[in-house]
Formats: sequence, structure tokens, C-alpha cells
Amino acid sequence: MKLSEGTEWAIHCCSLLANLPPDFALPKSRLAEFFDLPEDYLAKFLQELSRAGLVKTSRGPGGGYQLAKPAGQINVLEIVQAVEGDQHFFQCTEIRRCGPSGVADKHYKKPCGIARTMHRAEAAWRAELAAVSLNEISQMGAEESPQEQIEKSLSWFESVM
Amino acid sequence: MKLSEGTEWAIHCCSLLANLPPDFALPKSRLAEFFDLPEDYLAKFLQELSRAGLVKTSRGPGGGYQLAKPAGQINVLEIVQAVEGDQHFFQCTEIRRCGPSGVADKHYKKPCGIARTMHRAEAAWRAELAAVSLNEISQMGAEESPQEQIEKSLSWFESVM
Repeated sequence: MKLSEGTEWAIHCCSLLANLPPDFALPKSRLAEFFDLPEDYLAKFLQELSRAGLVKTSRGPGGGYQLAKPAGQINVLEIVQAVEGDQHFFQCTEIRRCGPSGVADKHYKKPCGIARTMHRAEAAWRAELAAVSLNEISQMGAEESPQEQIEKSLSWFESVM
Repeated sequence: MKLSEGTEWAIHCCSLLANLPPDFALPKSRLAEFFDLPEDYLAKFLQELSRAGLVKTSRGPGGGYQLAKPAGQINVLEIVQAVEGDQHFFQCTEIRRCGPSGVADKHYKKPCGIARTMHRAEAAWRAELAAVSLNEISQMGAEESPQEQIEKSLSWFESVM
């Protein structure tokens, strides 16, 4: 089982947008440039983030992408689910009802112990991701990036503003 | 992101094997019959469980599949990882090194905050699954199955022994 590559890009994009000054929108071409990615590839994740209400776009001169709400009000789970969807990893197909011991559907009143165990584990995964805000992600990046990277980022920001 | 269907079958197979008397081995054909599955389909998961040291096989008359160790010594995470592998869901491709702000590899001393956050969430998922033994799974099944299913299971068991 593997999260899609798009999830990683989506979190990085959001983290970059979190560093922009309020009211500044970054054109898709610039986002693509920052990550050295084809614009078309990036467009898919941006659309998903937009559909989830995490980023917004504006057109025309000065237009582009920005966060739809403050980074402190977006958590990592929301970003991940924008790309991955919110379905369970474990999708119970009711195997217990198969074969010679299965009985009529009405007798199965609640999910079986296997599905409950699997879903409880997913809830723990979701809780961890929901507990971390985009603001924290972006701060970790700012505090831990190599000094030279911070300088290069700042000069890139200046060049695009 | 979705766990493979095989994971669900593997847990159900192990749970069935956990209900067998010690020293009784269930032929693959009977396992397939219990779940109303093609033998070939089942064979793949059984191989994976065998490779992971969770089930063992014996040949000849009276041969078949049984757990390789007591159900109390097998946990759900082991079964899941036998089928899914133990790689991270989130595979960091070091996006931070891309584009105009990336610097030389030697400057990145530890995983970035995004990878750490994602991996911490996976650790929580794994911990939940590791905390539940196959014995508990099998007991939940025994306690919660509809009475009619328990009776049908018992009569099926009798027919195969």
C-alpha cells in the first residue's frame, strides 16, 4: 500500500503557499518552477486542493494560487485526503458472509472484529495527521532547512514578487 | 490509498486456521471451499503468509495448512505486512531538494518535517495493529458471529475432519 506521489507534492505546494505574504498569489507556472515540475502534472493536485477548499485561484495579472484559509486552520489530514480521498484503506467485503457458514444478511448487525481493528488503526493514523497544522509543517521547514536553501528560497521569492 | 483485497482474505484465513485443533492441517481445497474462493486465488496469499513464517504446510494424506505458531503469538500487523510488505505508505522523494532552492545533498541531515509527520502517523497505525493478536481476532469472531453461523461452521468443521 502506498500513498500517491501527488500527496507529497500537494503537501509541499501547500507549505510553499503558506510562506507567501497575505494577498500574494503565486502563478501555477511559478509553483511548477519552484518544484521543477511540468505545469500539467502539478495542475491535477492543485485542482484537488482547490476542490477541497484548501487553495483558491485568481485570474488575470497578479493572479495565481494562494491558501484559501490561514495555514493554522489547515491540517495535514485535509491535504492528504484532498488527494487520496477519505475512503478507508481497509475496505471490508464481508468475507464472513461467504461460503458454507454464511447466513442471511440480516444477522450481521455490526462490522466484524477484523474490520473494527483495521478501522481503529486508520483512525489512529488520521488522528496523527489531523493534529499537525500546515503552519507547523511550514515552520519545521523554515527552521530546519539548510541556511543556503533558505537564502536561495528568499531570493527566488524576491524574483517572483 | 487502499489495502489489497488479499489482506482481508489473509486475515480471515489465519482466523479460520486459529480455530483448528492443534496438529490438524486444513487442505488448500478446503480453505478455498470455506471462503468460496478459487484455490489459485487463495494460493498467492497463503504463499505470502508462509514466506512470513505465519502458516506452514505439510504434504501427503492429512496434509494442509496450519498456523506456524500459536494464535496468541501472531499479531494483525504481521499478517497485513505479509501481504502488503513493510514499506512506508508515504515514500519521501526528497522534493525539498528540487528546483531553484535545492542545495547539495550533504546539507540534508535528517528527514524533513513532512516525512516525519507522515511516518509518525504510520507508526500509530502499525502500533494499533501490532497490539491485536490473531487470538483476539478469532475470539471476536467466535463471540459475535450469528448463532446460526457458528452452528454451520461447526458442522462444516466436522465434515472436513
